[in-house]
Amino acid sequence: MSTVETFKPTKKTKVKRAPKRAHYDRQTVYEILDAGLVAHIGYVFDGHPYVTATSYWREDDRILWHGSSASRMLRELKGGVPVCVNVSLIDGLVMARSGFHHSVNYRTVMAFGTAHAITDAEEKLATLKAFTDRIAPGRWEELRPATKQEIKATTVLAMPIEEAVAKVRTGPPVDDEEDYALPVWAGVIPLKLTASPAIADPRLSPGIELPDNLRDFDLEAYGKLPKAAE
Amino acid sequence: MSTVETFKPTKKTKVKRAPKRAHYDRQTVYEILDAGLVAHIGYVFDGHPYVTATSYWREDDRILWHGSSASRMLRELKGGVPVCVNVSLIDGLVMARSGFHHSVNYRTVMAFGTAHAITDAEEKLATLKAFTDRIAPGRWEELRPATKQEIKATTVLAMPIEEAVAKVRTGPPVDDEEDYALPVWAGVIPLKLTASPAIADPRLSPGIELPDNLRDFDLEAYGKLPKAAE
Repeated sequence: MSTVETFKPTKKTKVKRAPKRAHYDRQTVYEILDAGLVAHIGYVFDGHPYVTATSYWREDDRILWHGSSASRMLRELKGGVPVCVNVSLIDGLVMARSGFHHSVNYRTVMAFGTAHAITDAEEKLATLKAFTDRIAPGRWEELRPATKQEIKATTVLAMPIEEAVAKVRTGPPVDDEEDYALPVWAGVIPLKLTASPAIADPRLSPGIELPDNLRDFDLEAYGKLPKAAE
Repeated sequence: MSTVETFKPTKKTKVKRAPKRAHYDRQTVYEILDAGLVAHIGYVFDGHPYVTATSYWREDDRILWHGSSASRMLRELKGGVPVCVNVSLIDGLVMARSGFHHSVNYRTVMAFGTAHAITDAEEKLATLKAFTDRIAPGRWEELRPATKQEIKATTVLAMPIEEAVAKVRTGPPVDDEEDYALPVWAGVIPLKLTASPAIADPRLSPGIELPDNLRDFDLEAYGKLPKAAE
């Protein structure tokens, strides 16, 4: 794991527009990565851009994701393909007094690196356990153990972060000074991904209670969960 | 606008993994696009993939987004650059009886095309009005009118959808038949992007009430809003 506290701004990551929203420190980048559920992964195939959404997780300076060994994206990336990983959390709609100053409150990370497949079965299993336990701590031990065939059929990709930048916007609209006197309502509509109470599988065997780790499911706990590798 | 009801599956869009989740009909593709707030846009620059999150809207068979004329992505795409637009809505965590069958309920669209800038000032203004009124119907008329300089400083990009596929997963986990007897809780944790009550700008002039179009803000209304161009 790299111990450098700050990512160096590069040609790819240096933010030119609204540069005060940019953060290059690992703590901000990691906090956003740890708070997200879904990443958008971009790669190039035959010269064309592709973007796929996938669940993911972070361990140290690596972003990991997985899927069937059969999927095209994973097949492409296994060879070691440059990727761009984007994680974006939408925190609110910013309603200003002019159309021009309407905005969105968000936390986003754009990270670049080369993804490779984790081929060692034990390492693969350890990362899948970390991923499952991130969703619900302790769940891995409650499940039917993974079979060799399942592990083989699952590709886990890891991308050590080579370059990264976080961008964050918070707070009320910023209007032109002369517009503050206008009789237009302005402010923020907060947005949040929220969980509703769990719905049991209609085929659930009688007498199985919802376990504590899935009760009052708290998405905000994500960033606070201990990471397996730390 | 194309009147063909179904996108033809292409080399880029034909889903090989879990093909029964794939939908090529315009109605499904458009419903997902209309229900989303943020798109992830992938493009290639110097051979490298980039993914940027941005708010967007749809009119007929075009996906539109905007931003400062200064931003790199918009500058790159103005020339007519191939892009991949991904919109993904996360509907739930699917908790199965084995790690292997854990999944996510989602609605996602992957759309391909070439983005170009809208240069005509009147057309640009009409699209910005449609975008603003999509967020809150009638808001455009409440705002301080856009200036020529603001319109000039805003790039609006439009991408006619050339190829597209929707993928949808719904419902409970699908476990291996012999696992249904296991004493493991299984089911779905529903997830939804939700709005909290609006927060007024601390600099809001006294006596300005929250307008009805921002009260009880309903994200689910998105897909039901009339489109300006229809």
